[in-house]
Amino acid sequence: MRPATGPVAPATSTHHGLGVSDVRLDPAGFWGIRQAVNAGATLQHCLEWMERLGWIENFDRVARGEATVTRPGWQFSDSEIYKLLEAMAWELGRSPDASLAAAFDSLVDRVGAAQDDDGYLNTAHGHPGLPPRYSDMAMGHELYNTGHLLQAAVARHRTGHDDRLVQIARRAADQVCKEFGAGGFDAVCGHPEIEVALVEAGRAFGERRYLEQARLFVERRGRGTLPVRPLLSAEYFQDDVPVREASVLRGHAVRALYLSAGAFDVAVETHDEELADAVTTQWRNTVARRTYLTGGMGSRHQDEGFGDDWELPSDRAYCETCAGVASIMLAWRLYLATGEARYPDLIERTLFNVVATSPSEDGRSFFYANPLHQREPGASASDGVNNRAEGGVRAPWFDVSCCPTNVARTIASLGAYVASVDDEGIAVLQYAAGEIRAGGFVLHVQTRYPDEGTVLVRILAAPESESRLRLRIPGWAGSATVRVNLDEAIDVAPGWADIRRRFEPGDEIVLELPLTPRFTWPDDRIDAVRGTVAVERGPLVLCLESTDLPSYVRVDNVRLDADLAPYAHADGARAGGVIVAATSSSGPLPFSAARPLTTESVPVEFTLVPYHRWAERGPATMRIFIPVAG
Amino acid sequence: MRPATGPVAPATSTHHGLGVSDVRLDPAGFWGIRQAVNAGATLQHCLEWMERLGWIENFDRVARGEATVTRPGWQFSDSEIYKLLEAMAWELGRSPDASLAAAFDSLVDRVGAAQDDDGYLNTAHGHPGLPPRYSDMAMGHELYNTGHLLQAAVARHRTGHDDRLVQIARRAADQVCKEFGAGGFDAVCGHPEIEVALVEAGRAFGERRYLEQARLFVERRGRGTLPVRPLLSAEYFQDDVPVREASVLRGHAVRALYLSAGAFDVAVETHDEELADAVTTQWRNTVARRTYLTGGMGSRHQDEGFGDDWELPSDRAYCETCAGVASIMLAWRLYLATGEARYPDLIERTLFNVVATSPSEDGRSFFYANPLHQREPGASASDGVNNRAEGGVRAPWFDVSCCPTNVARTIASLGAYVASVDDEGIAVLQYAAGEIRAGGFVLHVQTRYPDEGTVLVRILAAPESESRLRLRIPGWAGSATVRVNLDEAIDVAPGWADIRRRFEPGDEIVLELPLTPRFTWPDDRIDAVRGTVAVERGPLVLCLESTDLPSYVRVDNVRLDADLAPYAHADGARAGGVIVAATSSSGPLPFSAARPLTTESVPVEFTLVPYHRWAERGPATMRIFIPVAG
Repeated sequence: MRPATGPVAPATSTHHGLGVSDVRLDPAGFWGIRQAVNAGATLQHCLEWMERLGWIENFDRVARGEATVTRPGWQFSDSEIYKLLEAMAWELGRSPDASLAAAFDSLVDRVGAAQDDDGYLNTAHGHPGLPPRYSDMAMGHELYNTGHLLQAAVARHRTGHDDRLVQIARRAADQVCKEFGAGGFDAVCGHPEIEVALVEAGRAFGERRYLEQARLFVERRGRGTLPVRPLLSAEYFQDDVPVREASVLRGHAVRALYLSAGAFDVAVETHDEELADAVTTQWRNTVARRTYLTGGMGSRHQDEGFGDDWELPSDRAYCETCAGVASIMLAWRLYLATGEARYPDLIERTLFNVVATSPSEDGRSFFYANPLHQREPGASASDGVNNRAEGGVRAPWFDVSCCPTNVARTIASLGAYVASVDDEGIAVLQYAAGEIRAGGFVLHVQTRYPDEGTVLVRILAAPESESRLRLRIPGWAGSATVRVNLDEAIDVAPGWADIRRRFEPGDEIVLELPLTPRFTWPDDRIDAVRGTVAVERGPLVLCLESTDLPSYVRVDNVRLDADLAPYAHADGARAGGVIVAATSSSGPLPFSAARPLTTESVPVEFTLVPYHRWAERGPATMRIFIPVAG
Repeated sequence: MRPATGPVAPATSTHHGLGVSDVRLDPAGFWGIRQAVNAGATLQHCLEWMERLGWIENFDRVARGEATVTRPGWQFSDSEIYKLLEAMAWELGRSPDASLAAAFDSLVDRVGAAQDDDGYLNTAHGHPGLPPRYSDMAMGHELYNTGHLLQAAVARHRTGHDDRLVQIARRAADQVCKEFGAGGFDAVCGHPEIEVALVEAGRAFGERRYLEQARLFVERRGRGTLPVRPLLSAEYFQDDVPVREASVLRGHAVRALYLSAGAFDVAVETHDEELADAVTTQWRNTVARRTYLTGGMGSRHQDEGFGDDWELPSDRAYCETCAGVASIMLAWRLYLATGEARYPDLIERTLFNVVATSPSEDGRSFFYANPLHQREPGASASDGVNNRAEGGVRAPWFDVSCCPTNVARTIASLGAYVASVDDEGIAVLQYAAGEIRAGGFVLHVQTRYPDEGTVLVRILAAPESESRLRLRIPGWAGSATVRVNLDEAIDVAPGWADIRRRFEPGDEIVLELPLTPRFTWPDDRIDAVRGTVAVERGPLVLCLESTDLPSYVRVDNVRLDADLAPYAHADGARAGGVIVAATSSSGPLPFSAARPLTTESVPVEFTLVPYHRWAERGPATMRIFIPVAG
């Protein structure tokens, strides 16, 4: 087995992810550009904001014994520093940089100075002037913070450093095990995260105790130990039903997804098939009934939570950026355990349409929520700390600022999700220009995906004996072709295209994915988008943005003619339809005895652009699902 | 001018409401039954809950000097006692009862004992052990509480009593004027209510100062004096734009509507046409684009607020019961100033479909939110204090329990909204069996409305000279007829049917309103209900409830055939359509390249019941807008 160097490294899986240094993304490619912006702008942006707001100084205050309840930041602000450390660690592993390394070390020193002798580390609890340790399990977020500290340390360790951050994290994890172990405080944290972090820390640092503690937390959950309050129900905390008995994800979306990732990790490491099956069923039902076309999850602003089945409003879609990140965390674990293509399919959808949507092109402002329909243009973001930008405008920072650092750690470690290896060979999962070294292969991937559908994989090195190179054929691709060297191109269906041979340096594989824009129709049970259709192109969900319409046409007055096929265009796609006049109701209410007729309509052709790009050209209105004419 | 005895009595309007004792509703009629249940069950229910929870004892604690911040109830719990006092006052005015009078007096004594020497009266602020007076204008709710105290006192005064509650309220109002008057504390309360209450108190008690203070509060609003916090924006508080500059209601729905009622009252009393026009425009735009078929207002759980134009989801409709009550308050004021039929039209819609929906038949449990679509049956309400029942189940009480007492005061004073008088005669606005004495008329109204469409108005007494009796022909009535004595029936259009003559005792007027069930189509701009239709019958919005379907048919699998006219049925209506099989998507997500086809469908006829009656037969699913087949 190859050494574990990626973000998730199960001890027992047959499929293994790569390390961040195993993949070099072409800096001119879709994701390479984003990694460069992340490294060159976002990391520093996050650091500056947290310094300015005093969230980092909170650690200094604790070290100086000057903590007070009037400290800046929420009780989970420590986690933002840890997520930034994780992002920095992956970035340093991907592309070493002395200045970044110095910033990383300095931040680690400040964090470490706040740690108690027994390993406890928190700036909002457990020190003179602050509430006692673990005095608010529901909303105190102490274990949540610790979980992110562990994930940062795992990233540091997996990128080849067994240094101070790792020591800090191990001491913090030891303290958690001592406090919450068997016979200890029988409690769980209101925000799951410690579970997934403890399993990964156990894997990375070789501490079985951490895994056992994660297992305890997973088993304790769903038994009503958390106090509920108005608007914070047991379901919100996933404390309503034990994980192994639930059939679908519910409550706060990020909480539900982090918990599922941790529970699945526990199941894999303990060979608990019942638990693994339960999480798999929850994933399947959640994706089938509670997930947006973008891969976004979470239908409700209230509770930042999942809705009922089929409750998928476009306008009030919450689709928190962090829920997209968490969904990728879960799907990646399910993939490593099963090797099924549906998981990297969802990862691709979520990467291109949620993770890529959140940050602006300059990497210095972000969407928190990612609605699929914006009726009114948002106001421009101010320079100050923003509320949760509820659609329509990316903001430089938030009062609850979980998303920027979550995007940063995901993009920094993105290379690790591009391929996997197993005993038979290598699987290319995501198509991005660059170079992949794993499983005895060195692959050079050349592509302008997702703008173009041709992917050229050139073998620079390969194992001596026969092996298998598999390419993921996305679920959205009706038909694709694969050609090996001068062989004839063969049609391949969604799933896997396997090429088995003794590969030679110089071998070339050409995958052709169809990028003709296509209609995508919603299930008839989704009330919110009945009578509408979306247009997709490759992995990209497209949208109609007001910026691309004449000023006198409102986005919501466009009706799409489903008899006219959309066609490719440099900006995304073009489609046809009509502009309808705003109907005026006869009565005072917008309801009438007569069925609404769109009598006045003007033929129109319009441009659809990738959803991830929307709102880059100033405040705008936008919609993904367009009502069908007639 | 007749003496003011109803809930709203502008000094300058040409139309005047009635006093609660001017109307006797038949105890077997739709609203008479509800008034009896309100008097016989709801008032006592509210009293018992507030006693049990210690909300009333909060006053005793202040009187004893034992107040603490650990007092039970939110900072606005005092207002529930005041709204109950208002309900009791109207009920005593309508139908005197010694036991109720004793309960009322006892409650007034306990409230009064907590009043400070300078008139300040609050159990959550301003006493040793509590935060200082007016130290949290955004969320402290002190003036909101005082407003409800004033409204209770106005009810007491208008029903003929100038006693202790009135004195308490006057002293409290004096304190407010002293503190917040010109040159005083330049602030407004985060929850409007004091404005409308001060104008009414000024009218009732003849204190122009109170009106002036209300005017100051209205003018101060919209200038950003309230501190905003995450998730509590200036828009939430209507502090974003001055009232006279806004074009539509926005933010927290109850706040917006209470403020509008107060602003309109100020405009009427100060002859401020600009302000009156602004409120009228806001009402028109809000009703045209932000109001549900039920008359419900407020599309968002988050913020309990209005959404954007056309944002009217059925499933997550908030439609807080209190917003329905507040909408009636506003529409009634607009009617009294203008005499336009569109206002009592909306009042009728809201009474039958929001106010009548909230309380259970026994008057001891309530809906807080009133969604138009319930996908999953709610769990039965527990006996304890409930969260905000978010649809599907009426609960006996809530943590924030504004709705029960708001329903109680509205139903107790309902008679006052049944008719109005002006210099030319009487207008019958709402059809309810009973007797009306006003403007020199005594009318006996005989009807089984809304179950039947015949309304017989018998003149028992009339003015000596020629006068006008006008009947409101509801906007929903395509055609109606009126017959006077043995004259031929004449067709009348929506609006007013005026009969002008020298009326004689014994004269009979028969109004026939068409109660054939009818389709009602949503404006095409309401995305959430595209491709659906509702069925109404008379003033009642009907719904499809799972209780009326075979157990193997899900509400959401019914498709309505719009070519088959619905027909009347004892329970409401019957309509036809098909049951569709649940479509299964081909991929993991509920979206596919193929347009969904409903191939398997079984013809079905189904019963639709009045929405106000839903969930009376156990947990159920329900929908008002039904997808159209084909």
